[in-house]
Amino acid sequence: MKSQSELVELWNRKAAVVRKWCLISTTAAGSGHPTSCLSAVDITTVLFDKYIKYDLKNPLNSNNDRFVLSKGHAAPLLYTLFGVAGAYPLEELKTLRKFGSRFQGHPVPDFKFTEAATGSLGQGLSVAAGLALLAKRENKTFKTFALLGDGELSEGQNWEAANFASYHQLDNLIAIADINRLAQSGETMFGHNLVSYENRFRAFGFKVITIDGHDMLACDQALQTAVANNDGSPTIIIMKTYKGKGVSFLENSDQWHGKGLDNEQLKNALEEIGNVDDQLKFELKRVHVTEGETLKNDDVSLDFSFNPGEKTSLRKVFGEFLAGLGKQRSDLWVLDADVKNSTYTEKFCETLPERFVECFIAEQNMVSAAVGLSRLGKVPFVVTFGAFLTRAADQIRMARVSNANIKFIGTHVGVSIGEDGPSQMALEDIALFGAIPDTIILQPADAMAVTKLMPLTLMHEGFSYMRILRPETPIIYSNLDEFRIGGSKVLRKTSNDLLTIVATGITVFEALKAADSLEADGIHVRVVDCYSINPIDKKTLNNCLKETERPIIISIEDHFAHGGMGDFIGSALNGTINSKIIKKMAVEKISRSGSMDKLLGDAGISYLHLVEEVKKYS
Amino acid sequence: MKSQSELVELWNRKAAVVRKWCLISTTAAGSGHPTSCLSAVDITTVLFDKYIKYDLKNPLNSNNDRFVLSKGHAAPLLYTLFGVAGAYPLEELKTLRKFGSRFQGHPVPDFKFTEAATGSLGQGLSVAAGLALLAKRENKTFKTFALLGDGELSEGQNWEAANFASYHQLDNLIAIADINRLAQSGETMFGHNLVSYENRFRAFGFKVITIDGHDMLACDQALQTAVANNDGSPTIIIMKTYKGKGVSFLENSDQWHGKGLDNEQLKNALEEIGNVDDQLKFELKRVHVTEGETLKNDDVSLDFSFNPGEKTSLRKVFGEFLAGLGKQRSDLWVLDADVKNSTYTEKFCETLPERFVECFIAEQNMVSAAVGLSRLGKVPFVVTFGAFLTRAADQIRMARVSNANIKFIGTHVGVSIGEDGPSQMALEDIALFGAIPDTIILQPADAMAVTKLMPLTLMHEGFSYMRILRPETPIIYSNLDEFRIGGSKVLRKTSNDLLTIVATGITVFEALKAADSLEADGIHVRVVDCYSINPIDKKTLNNCLKETERPIIISIEDHFAHGGMGDFIGSALNGTINSKIIKKMAVEKISRSGSMDKLLGDAGISYLHLVEEVKKYS
Repeated sequence: MKSQSELVELWNRKAAVVRKWCLISTTAAGSGHPTSCLSAVDITTVLFDKYIKYDLKNPLNSNNDRFVLSKGHAAPLLYTLFGVAGAYPLEELKTLRKFGSRFQGHPVPDFKFTEAATGSLGQGLSVAAGLALLAKRENKTFKTFALLGDGELSEGQNWEAANFASYHQLDNLIAIADINRLAQSGETMFGHNLVSYENRFRAFGFKVITIDGHDMLACDQALQTAVANNDGSPTIIIMKTYKGKGVSFLENSDQWHGKGLDNEQLKNALEEIGNVDDQLKFELKRVHVTEGETLKNDDVSLDFSFNPGEKTSLRKVFGEFLAGLGKQRSDLWVLDADVKNSTYTEKFCETLPERFVECFIAEQNMVSAAVGLSRLGKVPFVVTFGAFLTRAADQIRMARVSNANIKFIGTHVGVSIGEDGPSQMALEDIALFGAIPDTIILQPADAMAVTKLMPLTLMHEGFSYMRILRPETPIIYSNLDEFRIGGSKVLRKTSNDLLTIVATGITVFEALKAADSLEADGIHVRVVDCYSINPIDKKTLNNCLKETERPIIISIEDHFAHGGMGDFIGSALNGTINSKIIKKMAVEKISRSGSMDKLLGDAGISYLHLVEEVKKYS
Repeated sequence: MKSQSELVELWNRKAAVVRKWCLISTTAAGSGHPTSCLSAVDITTVLFDKYIKYDLKNPLNSNNDRFVLSKGHAAPLLYTLFGVAGAYPLEELKTLRKFGSRFQGHPVPDFKFTEAATGSLGQGLSVAAGLALLAKRENKTFKTFALLGDGELSEGQNWEAANFASYHQLDNLIAIADINRLAQSGETMFGHNLVSYENRFRAFGFKVITIDGHDMLACDQALQTAVANNDGSPTIIIMKTYKGKGVSFLENSDQWHGKGLDNEQLKNALEEIGNVDDQLKFELKRVHVTEGETLKNDDVSLDFSFNPGEKTSLRKVFGEFLAGLGKQRSDLWVLDADVKNSTYTEKFCETLPERFVECFIAEQNMVSAAVGLSRLGKVPFVVTFGAFLTRAADQIRMARVSNANIKFIGTHVGVSIGEDGPSQMALEDIALFGAIPDTIILQPADAMAVTKLMPLTLMHEGFSYMRILRPETPIIYSNLDEFRIGGSKVLRKTSNDLLTIVATGITVFEALKAADSLEADGIHVRVVDCYSINPIDKKTLNNCLKETERPIIISIEDHFAHGGMGDFIGSALNGTINSKIIKKMAVEKISRSGSMDKLLGDAGISYLHLVEEVKKYS
């Protein structure tokens, strides 16, 4: 048993190792944020040496403690901590920021101890809250630690996360705020006025512990108190620190954000740090060995039957189906932002409250919390109005960099929602999700298609987005119809079709009406329902171009013109066949309030517009 | 002079008029949120009858008080308040939510008293803060009021706005929080626990006044205190209210969110409200008459000269140019999110601090505050890393619905930023801005082009987005080169070009290198710099298709494949000419850390990839 002074001495020596390698790696890289690392070295040294339980061989072991680096620009600190814990040889840190290295400029999953990709600020507390909630709900004993910067605390998402953590009584969540006073371009809003942070976090329901972040014993005591806490409130340790701590010419200087030292400066810095023993290692606590869960069972089967032609709510069927899926798949979680009675996730909430997460009206936190759930093998369905998923566009972007396996569902898409007007209409959602690499985008036209596409989205490992209509639509599919990612349905076809209309969602019905109307005038058109927007059914579309009288596709969608289904079609067919016309019909202006039919007309995507367009080519 | 009891009686009578029309209009519409209106009728009646100074003939009069309805679903309340103030005949409210009506489901600029489009929640306090900041900076005497719902207070943006308001000492800002306990799908996080809200706002630097929101005298006293406040802190009036107040069967019921009454229910409700005198009007205070400002002077001229071929920082030149423009145009404001030393808006900050707004790391509030500035005729430049504009995607969407005249600048675009890795790379920004109708998108390739495009973006009335590279690039343009919105530059052209390469930003230089390399092999290619991405230069591109040996365009861009420049090209050329190939080269996977050249190569958009692609067609 070591005395306190022996412990402190040991921690100081280990902290020196961490400081050394944060400096060496960033100098080798020629860029990076060494000073943002140095302010947090002391507490993380104590944390890793005395508190963290971790099975280095298995980062996904569901009993590991979790360390989320929210201030992602301090990536070298994260890397060094695991290096000093013995995860890899420290020398490898010299590859920092170089092409091919797992030590990227900001943490990404290439470094397998990364809980979530960070670097877009203010997201880590939400990820940590997601992890902590999972532990609470499943009676896991692990703790979740989140290291936050002071600059990033101005991001509103932190306060969404703080509300969420205290509402869900996440007393297994320990945030550490590194108040080093300096942000990128100057002093933060509050500088070293720690009371500003204390008051805010206390008001949001946190237990607050304020310390000198360079006092090892104070760090130890704060962590001990935080780890022992089980009174229902999350804890934050607010530390006064100095950016660049440990190297006199870096310390508390506003000239050193985001810069590596040159070789001469590095030499001086390392001299000041003194003799360092690279053999010193953190003593991670051992973990009762459990593998990460692999409960997945892909055999989901649920039978729904509908009356052909009967108007049916896609949202209601979605909600019922989701609840049904949840019963068969214990890894399925649902997150809601106070719209469960509109998206019908309330069915899931009633049936499986232990895997339903009420996030209230805070979409950013909802998405990042889902990243935390996904990290430990859960399959989160993030469900809200499609328009409000844009509120979390940056979190969605970062969730993808994290390789999270999240199923996004956006309801109330397009002008077809009617009276509520433009603020509630998702009209850029396909552009948003479409830009993100490897994202499946599906849009069912009827309730039967909902039941067919849901298992596909669940079984696809990775990002997917499904658009769900507000209005009821008539049932056009039967239980025998087969659907697949990358597929489509040819709904009208004759041997002498003039051209092809490609529709999705609500415009499928406009296309069918147009086809009927044209038929009466003796004009046959092919109608395709592209329920899979990305990937799009290139083969079928190519066949249409070949088989119709004229090689023309008219795409029609309830989405803005740029970045929608039409562009997926254009991209798929460009470069493959010559002599074709692809005409995009889509929404090209801000919409307004009115009935669905009026708004489809106003946007130029009604069946009447379609008839007119087709006749241009006849 | 009326006695207090006479005043209260009068206010009760006026409030009855407001309640009546909120109910009538939503019943006529068959949808809407009457109960969310009713909880806030009492205080807004006092506000409009006693406090608001307003020139109804000129909503843009820069001395008008400002009333921002953040809880946009209470739109009928906003409409009715101005109706009872005499802005239009109340009967017109029966057109609510109908096609063509200025009374849309959520407020938009069609109703000219709308300060900003709302309906996506939690944005109003930021808009109000932008307006209040403008008044502070320009010594205007108007007050800004913001009516907030309790459900929307879980949106983190509120806390960004709260920090902003107290940091900038906006004691002319008066928020009113309507704590009616019920959100859409159930009780809010805090229900009627007002202390939760008090603690939070007090911690964020607000003066807090808590009242019974249905006690007219308490409302009056609270407003009086708030309006008189000049101690540097913003005020919030936290009111305990009941959703549906004034109609017994609606009051405090969780069954009535977002529903209009049927005719029978309406009859009963109006009976309960009793006799109402529609002739009663609010007595708006008169405004010292001043027109809205029209200071604009479009003759901006700034001379910059560069050395041809010399590597020059686009960001530095942007920063200098912006500061220069600011001296010539007094309506130009700049907003920063703690990156002014990377975007070089620090030049503007040094020169014109009175029109520079430090928003710290809080992009959502930054964008919505800019909407407030734009409302009163300012031209805000919102400048940050392109990747972090996605943080405010929803606020950008709503700013467009507000018809705001904002100039967005995103720096550090594409994989060309190098070592910082994917979290810092803007790769979906063209998709995001491209989907929004009528948004100009420009991308200069060199510093000279920056100076040419900046005046264009300023003089364009409406939304624009400019991408600015992190790396320095060689000067390829001269002062004599002309640029225009919708233009492009043909950089290489011979009489026997095989095909055309269309590039933008950093890929212009890859295209030029590829052309040189191909030239050495005897293959001539045309090279076009599409500095105007939206609108794209359709005419030039069509000419290229006609004039080159093969009708082929290869587009190459440092952006994700979907929704980028390539799709603008595809859309522009589809439907116009047959027999062509448009091949998109773009980023198709999540990038990583590394040098720019390594990352361009890794993404498949280096000149070597281009050479290889061109040779496929030779």
